[in-house]
Amino acid sequence: MKFRRSERLIDMTHFLVEHPHELLSLTFFSERYGSAKSSISEDLGIIKETFEQRGIGTLQTVPGAAGGVKFISKVDRESAKHMISDLCSLMESSDRLLPGGYLYMTDLLGDPKVVNKVGKLLASAFAEKEIDLIMTVATKGIPIAHAAANYLNVPVVIVRRDSRVTEGSTVSINYVSGSSKRIQTMVLSKRSIKQGSKVLIIDDFMKAGGTVNGMISLLEEFNAQLAGIGVLVESENAEERLVDEYVSLVKLKDVDVKGKSVKVVEGNYFSSEIPFL
Amino acid sequence: MKFRRSERLIDMTHFLVEHPHELLSLTFFSERYGSAKSSISEDLGIIKETFEQRGIGTLQTVPGAAGGVKFISKVDRESAKHMISDLCSLMESSDRLLPGGYLYMTDLLGDPKVVNKVGKLLASAFAEKEIDLIMTVATKGIPIAHAAANYLNVPVVIVRRDSRVTEGSTVSINYVSGSSKRIQTMVLSKRSIKQGSKVLIIDDFMKAGGTVNGMISLLEEFNAQLAGIGVLVESENAEERLVDEYVSLVKLKDVDVKGKSVKVVEGNYFSSEIPFL
Repeated sequence: MKFRRSERLIDMTHFLVEHPHELLSLTFFSERYGSAKSSISEDLGIIKETFEQRGIGTLQTVPGAAGGVKFISKVDRESAKHMISDLCSLMESSDRLLPGGYLYMTDLLGDPKVVNKVGKLLASAFAEKEIDLIMTVATKGIPIAHAAANYLNVPVVIVRRDSRVTEGSTVSINYVSGSSKRIQTMVLSKRSIKQGSKVLIIDDFMKAGGTVNGMISLLEEFNAQLAGIGVLVESENAEERLVDEYVSLVKLKDVDVKGKSVKVVEGNYFSSEIPFL
Repeated sequence: MKFRRSERLIDMTHFLVEHPHELLSLTFFSERYGSAKSSISEDLGIIKETFEQRGIGTLQTVPGAAGGVKFISKVDRESAKHMISDLCSLMESSDRLLPGGYLYMTDLLGDPKVVNKVGKLLASAFAEKEIDLIMTVATKGIPIAHAAANYLNVPVVIVRRDSRVTEGSTVSINYVSGSSKRIQTMVLSKRSIKQGSKVLIIDDFMKAGGTVNGMISLLEEFNAQLAGIGVLVESENAEERLVDEYVSLVKLKDVDVKGKSVKVVEGNYFSSEIPFL
């Protein structure tokens, strides 16, 4: 079966977007469509240009016999500005403020549009880092971790607070929560991380950083390496931050639990080294 | 700025796939690309044909002044057969069997490729039902619930076993677990479901159906309606199933915990009324 260019462009666009960070050879596409490699090469040129113009991402070309193309999802600076400013407006409403200076975000973290936006921004931030897997902690980090994993094409492991039969044997550590100073436990299935893995930690909320710090200790137990930290929200009024290097999309400012007011501003995203489109 | 057809096809494909079940008018596209509606209409025809041929989904046309097109993600029967048979092989290994007849699936539920496949199959099953939101229970159902939500463009609400400060005020119910006959608790944030919502329940594993049944009781508390039930795995050796109508992708058979053997076969997917492509 032969394909016209228009059909190829449609199917290739879909296929590339569904297979990010995966090396796809010209031969693969040429066989998929029964078309000459020269035509495929032209198609990919048009797709790359359009993807870059429309803020979808880019195609990386890997030369040589074992070469091909990789779709890398990325944002341009301007779109990122818009997306983060949208997130700020969504979050900055006084009825989101909860006791302890936390923010009610359950609705946002359940909305696939918001979740994909957050996933795309976080994935773009780490698009050029070598990452083997994403680690997050149950429950609220899971949707954004999976959204980022979708764009980066890596698996997710979920740290739990309790151990359950369906996890098989587990490794557990104790850590001190940064804000409440209480001893807490973290559990991770023994089979979940290979030695030497490069791990990106993703979470929805970071106050003093105790939870993220706990995850870093857990990485040490598995002899894995920290490749980066990305959070949706950081809270400004943390006396002593336990974590240094991280990327945050938004930041809570002037949290006044009594007066029920909060300001939500840009996080450190634009002062981090983001490989924008 | 004017767009060539090839650029339009690429950007439209991406846009449609990122906005499933959303009514998009010809005017919207015509303004987006500075092109005549007749050209947009032709583009959509080519996209629809290619989407259907390649098993991506379909475009539904809504006629009239307020009309437009909707991208509906669907699978064809043959692809579904392959996808489900792949899932069976992935799951059917003896070292997945855990005490109590449970299956270790943590790695699979952390793999975005597997999760998207499951999400696409479940979303396709309910593609023509009216659904306002998806409900699942923490923790393992979350990734597949979000994947299905992505394809159906509806929010996800997550039921928890414990109540946490970041949820705000909650509604909780007690229910009897189907297999262990123990009393358990389920908690859901009060703000999360509007009265009259049509809810699709998604979970990773169903044995006797106690958990799903608990979620149904919770729906009653919120005066919401059950729109469907979809599970990844059902376990055959449930003496008394508490739930009647559901769609399952795979089924555990001949679970022998002592002998450490298990068979994984097709669930009831193909005997359900699935609106295949």
